[in-house]
Formats: sequence, C-alpha cells, structure tokens
Amino acid sequence: MKDKRLQKLGELHRKHKDIITLMPLQTGGLLTEAAKKALIEFGDGYSVCDFCAGNLSNIANPPIREFVHEFLPEFLGCEVAAVTHGAREAKFMIMHSLARLGDSIIVDGNRHYTTIVAAQRAGLNVVEVPSSGYPGFTIDVNEYEPLIEKHHPRMILLTYPDGNYGNIPDAKRLGEIAQNHDVPFILNGAYAVGRMPVNMDELGADFIIGSGHKSMASAGPCGVLGMKKRWEEVVLRKSETYSNKELELLGCALRGVPVVTLMASFPYVVERVHDWDEQVLKAQWFSDEVEKLGFKQLGEKPHRHDLLHFETLMLYEISKRVRERGYFLYKELKDRGIWGLQPGLARAFKLSTFAASREQLSFVVDSFKSILSKYG
Amino acid sequence: MKDKRLQKLGELHRKHKDIITLMPLQTGGLLTEAAKKALIEFGDGYSVCDFCAGNLSNIANPPIREFVHEFLPEFLGCEVAAVTHGAREAKFMIMHSLARLGDSIIVDGNRHYTTIVAAQRAGLNVVEVPSSGYPGFTIDVNEYEPLIEKHHPRMILLTYPDGNYGNIPDAKRLGEIAQNHDVPFILNGAYAVGRMPVNMDELGADFIIGSGHKSMASAGPCGVLGMKKRWEEVVLRKSETYSNKELELLGCALRGVPVVTLMASFPYVVERVHDWDEQVLKAQWFSDEVEKLGFKQLGEKPHRHDLLHFETLMLYEISKRVRERGYFLYKELKDRGIWGLQPGLARAFKLSTFAASREQLSFVVDSFKSILSKYG
Repeated sequence: MKDKRLQKLGELHRKHKDIITLMPLQTGGLLTEAAKKALIEFGDGYSVCDFCAGNLSNIANPPIREFVHEFLPEFLGCEVAAVTHGAREAKFMIMHSLARLGDSIIVDGNRHYTTIVAAQRAGLNVVEVPSSGYPGFTIDVNEYEPLIEKHHPRMILLTYPDGNYGNIPDAKRLGEIAQNHDVPFILNGAYAVGRMPVNMDELGADFIIGSGHKSMASAGPCGVLGMKKRWEEVVLRKSETYSNKELELLGCALRGVPVVTLMASFPYVVERVHDWDEQVLKAQWFSDEVEKLGFKQLGEKPHRHDLLHFETLMLYEISKRVRERGYFLYKELKDRGIWGLQPGLARAFKLSTFAASREQLSFVVDSFKSILSKYG
Repeated sequence: MKDKRLQKLGELHRKHKDIITLMPLQTGGLLTEAAKKALIEFGDGYSVCDFCAGNLSNIANPPIREFVHEFLPEFLGCEVAAVTHGAREAKFMIMHSLARLGDSIIVDGNRHYTTIVAAQRAGLNVVEVPSSGYPGFTIDVNEYEPLIEKHHPRMILLTYPDGNYGNIPDAKRLGEIAQNHDVPFILNGAYAVGRMPVNMDELGADFIIGSGHKSMASAGPCGVLGMKKRWEEVVLRKSETYSNKELELLGCALRGVPVVTLMASFPYVVERVHDWDEQVLKAQWFSDEVEKLGFKQLGEKPHRHDLLHFETLMLYEISKRVRERGYFLYKELKDRGIWGLQPGLARAFKLSTFAASREQLSFVVDSFKSILSKYG
C-alpha cells in the first residue's frame, strides 16, 4: 500500500459543523453532550461487552438490560423491546421471521425505500396502498382493508410519518383494521420515535420501529424494535444450539458504541417528545412564512410534523437560467451557513425544522427571500 | 417515566480503562488517536451521509468510495469489498445469498458460535469437521474433502484462526480442495484481518471476512467483506426497484460512525500487520513463561497467534478451597490492574497478548507467580 494515499484517512474532518442544519436525515440525530462523552468512554471496539455474560441485552454495566427490558418498553408502549442496527434491519428481522418466500405484505405508498428492499431481501411480494397523490400525498388507511381481503398478507406496514412529506396517517384506525383481520401490523416510526409521542399499544400495532440515528439523538447505525409479547418467540427466537442467542440478531446486533449513545441521550429524548406541540407549531409557522414567498408546501396541511416538502417553481425558473443549474440554491444557502437541502434540487425539496430555533428559521426565511430578490 | 431512574444513563462510565487488557475480544479493537478524533467529528447520527448520492460505498467525502473500492480490496487481496455491521453479518449475507433453505455447509469444529447462528438464521444444515481434540484442537483441512463429496455443500467455511485456541489451519490447502470441488470457500478472518498478513487470493478463498471492532482498531459494530468478482452479482445484488441499493446491505449497512473509525485507523492497521512476527514471538515467549509456572497451553505449539488458551489446574485447585471460587483469579488480577480473563474461570481461560507490551506481560507473569505463591 502506498502510505501517502492512506494518509488522509487519519485526518477525517466533517465540513458541515456549526451551521443551521435542515437535513431531514440529521436533525433528530444530533448527539447530546452526554452521548458525546459516551462515545469516547466506549469508543474502543467491544467496550460495551466488558461484563457480558452471553447476551448483549442482559448486560448490567453499562445498564443495557434495564434500558432494553424496562425503559424502552415503557417508552415505546410495548411489551418486549430490542436494539437493532437500525429501522431497516428491524423491518427485515420481522419479515424474515414471520413470512415465507412469496408471501405478500401490504404497505403504504409513502413507505421508505428500505421497506421495499427489506421485503425483496426476504423474498416477499409487496402490495402498495397508493397515496392521494399531488399535492397532499395522504394515505387513507381504510384502503388497506379491501387489499387485506384480496391478498391475505402475512403482515401490513405503515410509515408513520413518511420521510418524504411528513404525513401522519391514521395509525389507530389501521390498528383496528389489523386486529379485525388478525394480521400483524408494523408501525415504522423512524421519524416518530424520539421526536413525538407515540405508543404502540395505543395505536393497536404489533410492532413499532424507531431509528436511533434519525430520531433518538444517537450515533449511527442504531435502532429500536418493540413488539407484543406474542411475537417474542417468533422474532426473537433463540438458537437451538445456543439458548441465549437470538437468531435474528445473530447473537447480538448492536454490540458497540451506538447503543451507548442511544442510552446516554435517552433521558433527554424522553423529555423532548413532550415539546412536540411546540415543534409542530414551529413547523407550521415556518411553512406559512415560506408560502408567503411563493413556496407551496406539499403533504398534509396544516402540517403535523417537522419534516416538510416544498415545491418552489420560482427557484426552479432561476435554476434554468444560471450556470450552476439547481446547485445555485445549495451554494447560496451554504454561503449563508444553512445546510441540508439535497444539492442540485431547486424545483422541490424536503427539509426539517426540528433542530433549528425560531430565530434560525427566521434567518432561513430571510435567506430564501434574499436569494429570490438577488436573482429576481 | 421516572426521571431519577434514567439519570444514570446520562453518566455512563467505563470502569476498565488504563489497565493491562488481555481480553481476546478487545485487544485488536483499541482505537487509534485518529479514530478517537473521527468519533467526535462524525458522532452525530447520519454524519457520514452528508454527501451521499444514494449509495454509502460511493461517498467521496469522507472518502468511503476510495476506501471500499481501492484500499480494502488491495489490503484483503480480493476483487470486490464491502463494509458490514460485523463478521457475523457478513457470514449471514453470503449464506442468505448463495444458499437455499435446507442446503448444507461444511465448517470447522472450531468455528465461532455466530457461524452456527448465521447458518440457522438462513435455514442451513451445518456439517462440522471435528478438531483433533485435547490438547491441540487442530483442524486437518483434508477432512473437508470426504465431507464435500458426501454432502455436496453449497459452501464451506474455515475459521482462521479460531477464537478459542488461536489455531491457524492450512487455509491454502483448503483453497485447493475448494477449487478442485468448485465449492465456494469463506475464510472467516475476524482474528486475522488487521492483526496479521492475510490475503484472500493467495489462500484461494472466494470470500474473506474481517471484524473492525475485533481486529481493525475500530469502534463496534463494524466489519469488512471481500470477495471474488464473480460473487458481486450474487452477494451484492441490487434491488430491481432501486438500482443503487444492495439487497443484502439493505441499501447501506454501516451508515454511521464505526465506518469512520475503521477508515481513520486503517493507515495504522496496514502498518501493524507488518509487525506480526514480533507479535507471534511475544505470544510464544509469554506462553513459555507461564508454562514454567505450570500452566499448560492448549492449541497449536509453537503457537502462531496472540490468542492463547491455558489450562491451569493449580489455579483450579485453589478456586475449590477459597470463598470466591473461580472469581478469586479475576479479583486478584483486577487488583493488580490486569483485565480480560472471563470472570469466574480458573481451570482454563483464554487471553490475548496483542495489546500488551513485553514489560506488561512480564508483570502479568509475575502476577500469576505471586497469586500462586499467595495461595500456595
């Protein structure tokens, strides 16, 4: 190996620090100070396994056992919980456990791409409940019912909210439908758990999935999975050879520093979901402000989540006549210390108001205003 | 939630720092200074995805693309590489891609438990090549041949070295056997890659697996997978719906801070494998020294790896007559700042000399000596 080429690996720096971040993937995953300290404490390889007696979720020091078996179930509103590598891995675990090759599942049309990829990895047939389309893209959960009767799915999944429009479908109604048809119901709460109050039991779901790096102030990759007790023997079934090793976790999944950041941030995360009403008001206020500039908010209105999608035809018109094309917007925002819109997009984009204060968001609104007038 | 119960989560501390560590799971996973810095730089949730255009292994900043597609293949001696959540997840990816429910695989009797668990998760039938048993526990790879002819396995796996005795079987000979029988050959190098020179191509394997947290100075969970080009379309096959998403990685597996620590430590890891001869001499010297005290080293002799297993009947005799039973040894060593033997074991235990200096190991030898004379 040529050492010179490798040298840069020893000096990795992140460029987008200390700026206003609107990136939907990132606003819920900013670490707390406690999590940053935990990163250093437990950074070395298998540090969390200092006192492992054979099962990750039974480690008492650090208190993973209490976290997984007491705190998480209470927080998620479920009977049994596990920590996973992330939301997608939790979806695959459930699909791989419950279904056989060729089984059908029904999902919402706003589902994350990983729902499809997990189903394809498990060899399943996916039926989608379409959204209402432009501009609301809402999901009517009543449309699951005829499809359940037609396809006899092995399970159904609802994305709550979806990552594209931040729409919050009627999960409770789907819980009733699922129970009436005795079909297992997965709630993908990657953008809910850790941001907003959500309770699996109250919504009548069989499974709830959360994402540590997306919404629980954790390092990636990291996720949580909650379920009804009846599914423990299926999804968390043990090896016949190794009676303390769950097959779907391959013994122990999240054996490293992300689980410690998840735990360290947890007291803060438990608190912050109580501020959800203010988060929603902030998002609605921001949406109103940029709509005054001529942006059009897609998805549900009034909006009930910090994840927002805007159609911005005037920015698109500008992009058609500038040298940088769609990248002009990314560049203009970056020059103002604002980060998180997908580079190259100007016609429509998503953003999240979760991590920014009202003052910062005012600055974002003013920035859009000044960009529009600059290219006016 | 009762806040008081959660409070401790915000103050997680690791107790076993700054001491001599002999724990086989941990000696190869201690972070470099560069990796510690990278932890903080990229700690927040999805930080590594700042500039993702749809596929983790194509991210140019941080230079994951160059790392995965250039540096790793060169280091592993393979044509195609990927980063994974760990060695066990890599094993499952291969098994799940290549085999069908009920297929057979042949593995060595010294295999890690996760080889069995991964095979069980994939619904495979496992045939084991037994070791020679006490005291050498060696694997004669020629014994794979009649089993291949009998069982027509979908693949074979060799643990190189195993994690129990640190034995290094004749992988090159098994590579020839695999090629003669046209059966895919997986080399599980979780305790090799990053510690000692190992080259997939030279050994005639189809796949090579490494562990970031075990042997590549990385935070957990984290691993690497190398393969021949011909397997890329099988194991790293893309979704038919999302053409840049690998099914077995669920789009992107290691999307977080462990991959950055893997990269940051990589220049150091590339260098340290050149010091392997000295590591082996150190392990042999240590083994000789404690054998003088009456310990019996199990596994191959002379030993060729830092992972050592000792039978210590005199310590066992002591444990039978002291109040703490087997824990007396753990306690005596801990009091001397030595850490890593499994608590409770006194009759036989494994340890690794990889992270300790000769001076520190001398102190360990002296400590054993003084414990023996104290209870003597």
